[in-house]
Amino acid sequence: MKKSLGAKTLVYPTPVFVIGTYDQAGKPNVMTASWGGICCSQPPCVAVSLRKATYTHGNLLARKAFTISIPSEDYVRQVDYFGLVSGRSVDKFAATKLTPVRSELVDAPYVKEFPLVVECKLARVIELGLHTQFVGEVIDVKAEHGVMAEGGLLEITKVKPLTFTPDTQAYYGIGHLVGQAFSVGHGI
Amino acid sequence: MKKSLGAKTLVYPTPVFVIGTYDQAGKPNVMTASWGGICCSQPPCVAVSLRKATYTHGNLLARKAFTISIPSEDYVRQVDYFGLVSGRSVDKFAATKLTPVRSELVDAPYVKEFPLVVECKLARVIELGLHTQFVGEVIDVKAEHGVMAEGGLLEITKVKPLTFTPDTQAYYGIGHLVGQAFSVGHGI
Repeated sequence: MKKSLGAKTLVYPTPVFVIGTYDQAGKPNVMTASWGGICCSQPPCVAVSLRKATYTHGNLLARKAFTISIPSEDYVRQVDYFGLVSGRSVDKFAATKLTPVRSELVDAPYVKEFPLVVECKLARVIELGLHTQFVGEVIDVKAEHGVMAEGGLLEITKVKPLTFTPDTQAYYGIGHLVGQAFSVGHGI
Repeated sequence: MKKSLGAKTLVYPTPVFVIGTYDQAGKPNVMTASWGGICCSQPPCVAVSLRKATYTHGNLLARKAFTISIPSEDYVRQVDYFGLVSGRSVDKFAATKLTPVRSELVDAPYVKEFPLVVECKLARVIELGLHTQFVGEVIDVKAEHGVMAEGGLLEITKVKPLTFTPDTQAYYGIGHLVGQAFSVGHGI
């Protein structure tokens, strides 16, 4: 038996993305965002939704580029900090002692210490209400050697990404392998 | 040191959504989709991207409504099956012995056995390329009593949602609590 919880933004899992942009003065900034995901395979695109009040919103419109740095759970404190304060008043890289790297492909910085990075050019801006959805075309994905298996595929258990629970507002890690896709459903 | 993996759709985590629609004859259908996520808080909206080739794509345009049923990992075989076959040729509910429930709020069915359900009215259709992004306004969220803690909040460790790895094409479960959001970052 199901209970109604009302009209709210509640799905599982939601990602924990760290969005990197430059401001108008060229200062690198990062913010944490969980409203987003992949939205197209060809061209490869990722969507991230941001409130107009955020510093990143203006940066993104001005620079037309962003990165998504995907943190490992070891950096949960820094990731949470990135969502607590505004780049208008704080240099978040300096405060956390993390390192901004200038993308060679798009006009945005990413976080050196995080294992997986997606570099995007702004492709679409879609006003949905409180949030603006930014669709980025993926120009490149970069990963640390240490999170890759032989053959070049990533191991999610080495990336150790976070997921965010919208209702209880907590970060969880990724668990065990449950099954292989396009495989375990055969034979039903 | 990071290695370039090329322009591809690769972020962690991506969700495992089961999208419920009726076809033109009123037959309930479901398909699995991992390109999507929350995209606006007010009005509450969720985005799901589907290829035009899917049966659900046409159903959604015709009915202007869909549900997202979020499976627990116990149903990984059925979930994978939902992504392997087309509702054009198969009654996926009959084949899996899962139960379609007619939503009282939107013109779409959901999966009775899955712990969490989001009922959506189609709000926007955005052509991005190979995929069409469907933005749904959330009309209600429903959850099984058994996955709720006292106070009415969900426990993700009871929902046991799946996440999908785009590169290795596997399903993983959710792991342990890493930290409380808007909390662990204080004091940096």
